[in-house]
Amino acid sequence: MAGSVFGRRFSVSTWGESHGKAIGAVVDGCPAGIFLDTDYIQNILDRRKPGVSPFATKRKEEDLVEILSGVFEGKTTGTPISMLIKNRDQRSEDYDKESYRPGHADYTYDIKYGFRDYRGAGRSSGRETAARVAGGAVAKKFLEVLGVQVKAYTYSISTVTIENPDFTITNHLNMPDEIAYQKAAKLAEDALQAGDSLGGEIMCEITNIPMGIGEPVFNKLEAIISQAVMSIGAVKGIAFGAGFDAAKMQGSTHNDIMFVEDGVVKKRSNNAGGVYGGISDGSPIVFKAAVKPTSSISKIQDTINNKHENIKFKIEGRHDPLIVPRAVVVVEAMAALSVADLILQGVSSNIEVVKRALL
Amino acid sequence: MAGSVFGRRFSVSTWGESHGKAIGAVVDGCPAGIFLDTDYIQNILDRRKPGVSPFATKRKEEDLVEILSGVFEGKTTGTPISMLIKNRDQRSEDYDKESYRPGHADYTYDIKYGFRDYRGAGRSSGRETAARVAGGAVAKKFLEVLGVQVKAYTYSISTVTIENPDFTITNHLNMPDEIAYQKAAKLAEDALQAGDSLGGEIMCEITNIPMGIGEPVFNKLEAIISQAVMSIGAVKGIAFGAGFDAAKMQGSTHNDIMFVEDGVVKKRSNNAGGVYGGISDGSPIVFKAAVKPTSSISKIQDTINNKHENIKFKIEGRHDPLIVPRAVVVVEAMAALSVADLILQGVSSNIEVVKRALL
Amino acid sequence: MAGSVFGRRFSVSTWGESHGKAIGAVVDGCPAGIFLDTDYIQNILDRRKPGVSPFATKRKEEDLVEILSGVFEGKTTGTPISMLIKNRDQRSEDYDKESYRPGHADYTYDIKYGFRDYRGAGRSSGRETAARVAGGAVAKKFLEVLGVQVKAYTYSISTVTIENPDFTITNHLNMPDEIAYQKAAKLAEDALQAGDSLGGEIMCEITNIPMGIGEPVFNKLEAIISQAVMSIGAVKGIAFGAGFDAAKMQGSTHNDIMFVEDGVVKKRSNNAGGVYGGISDGSPIVFKAAVKPTSSISKIQDTINNKHENIKFKIEGRHDPLIVPRAVVVVEAMAALSVADLILQGVSSNIEVVKRALL
Amino acid sequence: MAGSVFGRRFSVSTWGESHGKAIGAVVDGCPAGIFLDTDYIQNILDRRKPGVSPFATKRKEEDLVEILSGVFEGKTTGTPISMLIKNRDQRSEDYDKESYRPGHADYTYDIKYGFRDYRGAGRSSGRETAARVAGGAVAKKFLEVLGVQVKAYTYSISTVTIENPDFTITNHLNMPDEIAYQKAAKLAEDALQAGDSLGGEIMCEITNIPMGIGEPVFNKLEAIISQAVMSIGAVKGIAFGAGFDAAKMQGSTHNDIMFVEDGVVKKRSNNAGGVYGGISDGSPIVFKAAVKPTSSISKIQDTINNKHENIKFKIEGRHDPLIVPRAVVVVEAMAALSVADLILQGVSSNIEVVKRALL
Repeated sequence: MAGSVFGRRFSVSTWGESHGKAIGAVVDGCPAGIFLDTDYIQNILDRRKPGVSPFATKRKEEDLVEILSGVFEGKTTGTPISMLIKNRDQRSEDYDKESYRPGHADYTYDIKYGFRDYRGAGRSSGRETAARVAGGAVAKKFLEVLGVQVKAYTYSISTVTIENPDFTITNHLNMPDEIAYQKAAKLAEDALQAGDSLGGEIMCEITNIPMGIGEPVFNKLEAIISQAVMSIGAVKGIAFGAGFDAAKMQGSTHNDIMFVEDGVVKKRSNNAGGVYGGISDGSPIVFKAAVKPTSSISKIQDTINNKHENIKFKIEGRHDPLIVPRAVVVVEAMAALSVADLILQGVSSNIEVVKRALL
Repeated sequence: MAGSVFGRRFSVSTWGESHGKAIGAVVDGCPAGIFLDTDYIQNILDRRKPGVSPFATKRKEEDLVEILSGVFEGKTTGTPISMLIKNRDQRSEDYDKESYRPGHADYTYDIKYGFRDYRGAGRSSGRETAARVAGGAVAKKFLEVLGVQVKAYTYSISTVTIENPDFTITNHLNMPDEIAYQKAAKLAEDALQAGDSLGGEIMCEITNIPMGIGEPVFNKLEAIISQAVMSIGAVKGIAFGAGFDAAKMQGSTHNDIMFVEDGVVKKRSNNAGGVYGGISDGSPIVFKAAVKPTSSISKIQDTINNKHENIKFKIEGRHDPLIVPRAVVVVEAMAALSVADLILQGVSSNIEVVKRALL
Repeated sequence: MAGSVFGRRFSVSTWGESHGKAIGAVVDGCPAGIFLDTDYIQNILDRRKPGVSPFATKRKEEDLVEILSGVFEGKTTGTPISMLIKNRDQRSEDYDKESYRPGHADYTYDIKYGFRDYRGAGRSSGRETAARVAGGAVAKKFLEVLGVQVKAYTYSISTVTIENPDFTITNHLNMPDEIAYQKAAKLAEDALQAGDSLGGEIMCEITNIPMGIGEPVFNKLEAIISQAVMSIGAVKGIAFGAGFDAAKMQGSTHNDIMFVEDGVVKKRSNNAGGVYGGISDGSPIVFKAAVKPTSSISKIQDTINNKHENIKFKIEGRHDPLIVPRAVVVVEAMAALSVADLILQGVSSNIEVVKRALL
Repeated sequence: MAGSVFGRRFSVSTWGESHGKAIGAVVDGCPAGIFLDTDYIQNILDRRKPGVSPFATKRKEEDLVEILSGVFEGKTTGTPISMLIKNRDQRSEDYDKESYRPGHADYTYDIKYGFRDYRGAGRSSGRETAARVAGGAVAKKFLEVLGVQVKAYTYSISTVTIENPDFTITNHLNMPDEIAYQKAAKLAEDALQAGDSLGGEIMCEITNIPMGIGEPVFNKLEAIISQAVMSIGAVKGIAFGAGFDAAKMQGSTHNDIMFVEDGVVKKRSNNAGGVYGGISDGSPIVFKAAVKPTSSISKIQDTINNKHENIKFKIEGRHDPLIVPRAVVVVEAMAALSVADLILQGVSSNIEVVKRALL
C-alpha cells in the first residue's frame, strides 16, 4: 500500500487518473446486510459533480457510478464493494507535458516517480475525489443505520463568513446563509472575471455519534479525521471545536462543563468539538477545514519547465475558480469514512460489548 | 492494534499509564547501522522533563530512559528498539475515582472501557508523551544521518505572538523572542496565581527534507503529520504554510512561484508549507499547531461524578498551567516520526531507486 | 480492510463475485517506471483460463483483462494499477440457493454474513483467483526487472508423483514429466467418468532472489508466503525445503552446510528451502503446497439445506474435476506477490542501503 | 513495522535479544474488562521454560514475567499490556562472532543488516518465543471468556508417532501417549549422546470456536494461522485437517458431509480441519506443524566464517537437542493470537451483530 488505502477495518481504496479510462473505489469491511443501491451513491456524487455551478469547471462529466461487486439482492454482502466511474469528457490535448504549473504537484510527481501522467494532473487531480465520495457514500449509508449524521457546509468564502447557518437555504455555494451567499457569489464572480481564484472554510458536524468512539493514543477521533480531511488536496488546515481560538483561551473558559439535567448528561459548551482524550462523548463532533484558493487560474504566471528554464505560463483547460462548494461533499465523505472505521474498531474495545455481539 | 502504534514502516508503539510501574516505547523498522546511545535520547527527553519551569507540573520525574533491545555495539540492529522509563514520583492518592474532571477523558474512558485507571488520567495522561519523545528521538537520529532537521518552538502564548524567531535565545517557554517571552511569562504568572491555565501555538519547521517524500492519496505528507500532531492530547488544530489565512487569499497570491537561479530551482514564497500534491519539493515543511489551555486548573469547577450527580470539584495533584513549552518537544517528536516513516516508504516508489538500492 | 487486501508495501486487493458483473484487482505500491502492458498480464491469465483442459470446468470465460489506471506511456506510474475482468458466461440458474454444498463455504458464509451470493459460490468461488493472477502478473513483471523468477508446477496428482522435472515438457496438467503425466491423465479421466475429483501437490521455486529478503520475526519469508499460498481456497498445507520430512531428520543431516568454492559461497543441500531465520540467503526458495480434491463433484451427496433438513444433493454447473494444473498459476502469483512485497520492505532495513537509494 | 508486530486488531509486538537486558511483548487491542494476573501468564510461560527437561537447553532462566501496563485493579483496561522478562543467565562468551553456524540465521542477518548481535543468535534466538508465549497467554485468557480452547501437543518425535492422544498422560515431551513417549525418549537420549538433534510434529486443536470466524479472501483462518505458526523459527510446514493426505484423496471421500441430528448440525468427518472458505463452522480447527531438528548440535560441522573461509566448527553454549516439546507451547500461543484477532475482526462483519453490540 502506497497511500491509496484509507481505513483499518472499514476501508476504502481509490484508483484512477483524471484522463484515464475510469476512476474507482473499493470499499472493504462494510458489514453485510445493509441496504444499498446505485441511486443512493449517485445522489451524493451528483452533489459534487462538475459543470453545474457557474464557478466550477466546465468539464462535463456525468460521473455515473456503477456497482460491480459486494451488493447482492439489494444488500451489502460483507465483501468488497467495487465502484466504477468512467471518464468521458477528456481533453488531454489541453495539457502541457513540460511546464510545471504553480501550486500543483507536477514538479513533485516528476521528481518522485521519474515521470508523470501530465493529462489533467493525472492521479493528483481533484477528479480523484469523486472516488472518495463514492466510498464515503457507502460509509454514510452504514452510519445512517446507526443513526449517525455527517453534514458539511461552506463556512466562509474568502473574507465572507456565515453568521448562523440555516439549512433550509440551498444554493450553488453550499452556503447556508442568504446574505453571505450573495456577497460570496459577488466575490467569486469578480475573481472569475479577473482570471483568479478564491479559497474558503468548510464546517463539518457529525451528530448522534455513539459515545466511546475513537482509539487512543495515535488513532484519536481528531487524529484520524485530520488525516482524512488533510489528505484532500486543497485542504491546508483543520481545527476542532474552538480550534485555533482555543490557543487564546483560559482553562476556566475552554473547559466544557458537564452537568446533569433531568437525568441526562449535558454540557455548557462544546469547545473541544465533542472529543475528550480522542474519544466521543456523544455530543456533536465539530471541525473546520481551511481550503486554499484553486491553484489553476487563467492569469499568466511565471514558472519553470522540466528543462529548468524560466517561462511564462497560462493554464488552459477547464477549472474551478472556487473549489470550496464541491470540496464540502468531499469533506463529508472523508469524515464519514473516518467515523465508520472507528465505530467498527470500537466494537471490540470492551469485553462486555464483544460478548453481547458474539454470545 | 487499537491505536497505540504509529507508522507503517518506521513505527513506534507506546504503552504505559501515568501512575503504573513504567511507560515505554518500541520502535520497529529503524534501519540497521545507525549510531545511537542512551545519552542522545536522554538529552531530548530532558527538554520535555517536568519539574523545571515555574509553569510546569511540580511532579519530580527523572525520566531516565533505558534501552532494552535493538542496539548492539553502539548501533541499531534493525530489530525493535525497546525503551523503558520508570515512573517514580507517584502520588495516586491525589486522584479521585468518582469525579469527572472537566476537559479530561475521565468520562469518555469510563464509557468506552467500562472502567478506567483513575490515577493521574492513566493512559490518557500527558505522561504518555514521554514515550513518544523517546521514539521520536530515534527518528531524529535517523533523520540526522540523512541531514534532515526538525525544529519546533513556541509561536504564541495566549495573545502574545513572537515576531521574528531568534534561535540564539533560550528560555523556559521555548519562545525564541525576548520581548514576547517577557510578556508571555507575565501572563503565565498571572494565570498561575489565578489558578487558571493558558494555551498557545507551536510552529514547526522540517528542513533539508529530500524531495519526493509523501505518499499520495491518503498518506500525503500533510495528512500523516496531521494525524501525528493531532494525536497529541492538547492539540486541537493544525495548518500548513499560510494555513487558515490561505482561505482568504487568491490563487495568484497563494501560488508559490518557482524560478531557476544559477541553475537552482527556487520559490518566491512557501505558502503551501513545502508540500504539493502531498509530496515534498525539498523546501522547508512548515506547520503550526494550536494548543488548548491545560484542562487541569486549580479553580473550583462544576462537574458531575460517576453517579451522575452535579458536584463542585477542585483538582488536586500537580499540573502544568502552561503546557505549550513542553508540547514543543512532543510536536517535534511526532513530526520526526512522520517524516522518518514516509522517507522509508518513499525508497520504494521508483524502480530506478530500488535498483540503485538493491543491485 | 476485511481480508481482501494482501501486502504491506507492494499490495494487491481483489474484488468481485463469480457471477457478478466483473472481478478485478488493484495493485498499490508497484514502483514507477516499469514497462507493463496488457499482453503481458493476459498471457499469464491465459495459463489459468478455464475451458481449455478436458479436466477443467467447461465454463467459457475469455478472461480478458483491461488496465484502467496506473500505467501511462507504457510504464507504471507508481500509483494504483486497476485491472478489470468482465464476467461473461454466467449461468446463475445452475445454482441452488438453499442447499449447502459439501466442502464449500455456503454454510459458513450464511452464518457469518446472514445471507450470501449463492451464484457460483459468489466471493468464495475459485473465480476470484483470476484477479490474484492479474495482480501477481504485475509482481512478476517487477521481479523480472530485478532478475527474480518464480516457477510453479504440478508435483503430484493423487498418487502419481513426478521424478525429475523436465521443463521442456508442456501439457495440460502443467506436469513436467511425461510418464507421470500419462499416468495422472488416466487417473483424472477415471475420476471424471466416476463423477469424482482428485487432489495433488504443487511445487514452487523462486530463483535469483536477492539475499537478505524477509522480515523477522512474524513476517519471515516462509510466514508471508504461507499466508499467501494458504489463502488459496483449495490449498490445505504448505512446507518449505525438506518440509514434513524434516521432522524425521537429524540436525546433522538437515543442516545445510555452507562452503566457499572459487570465492563463491555455496551449500551442500537446501533442506531449509533457502530461508534461515526467515531471511533469504540467495539460494532458491523452495516450497510445496497440498491441494485438496475439488469439492464440486457430480456424484449425488448427502448434505443439509438452510432449513436444516437432511437432503440428497447433486451439484449441477460446470466444475473442475482436477484443479491442480490451474492452481499452479495461482500459487505462482501469490508467491510473486509475497516476494515483491518483502523485497520492497527490505530496501529500508539497512542505513547503508537507504543512503545509497536516497543520497 | 518491520515484522515484529502480529495481528490487526488483537495484536502483539515482541522485542528483545537472547543476551540483551530483557525481552518483552506488548499486546494492543485486548478488550477491556478481562480478569488477568501475572500468575496466569507465568503458569503458561513455565510450560515453555528451559532447564527442566533432560533434552532441553541447560540455560537456567526463571523467565519471570512482569506486567508493566494495561491491567488495573485486576482487569485489562483496553490499553496496551506491556510485559517484561529479564534475561539472567547470559553466557555471551560462549558465542563466536565470526563463524556462521549451519542452519542458523547468522549469515543472513549479517547480509541483511550489515552486522548482527552474535550473542546467542540475538533476535533470531528461540528465546524470542518466550515473549510470544506471554502475548499468547493474554489471548488465551480472552478466548477463555468466550469458551474457546487451544490445545497443542507433540504428535511425533522423529519416526515415533502417537496413536490416540490421552490427555491424562503428562510428560517432559508433551506427548500424550505412554508407549510413544518411551520410544521417543529413547531416541532423544541417543541423539543427545551422539551430539545430534531430532525433529517432530506438533498437533493443535482449537475447540468451541464461534462459527463465522475468518476473513475471506487473504485472511482466511488457515492463512492467518499459517503465517503465525510458520513464523516460529523451527517450523517448516503446516497442514490443516487431512493435510497433505488430502492430495491423494478424492472429492467424494474428502468432502465433510453435513447432517442434522436432533436439530443439531453435525459432520461425518473433519477433513477440512474445521474451515470452509476460510471461515470456521464451529467444529474443531485442527492443524499439524512440522518442526525441523534443532540446528545447534554439538558435533563438529563444516561451515564458513565472515571472512569467507572454510572452517571446522563446534557449537558451544547450551542448546535443546529436541525443541518440539517446548515449541508445543509456542504453537499454542500463536494459534491463540490468530484466533483472538480474527474473532475481534469478525465482530464487525455483519450489521445485525454490530447493532447488537452498539445499540
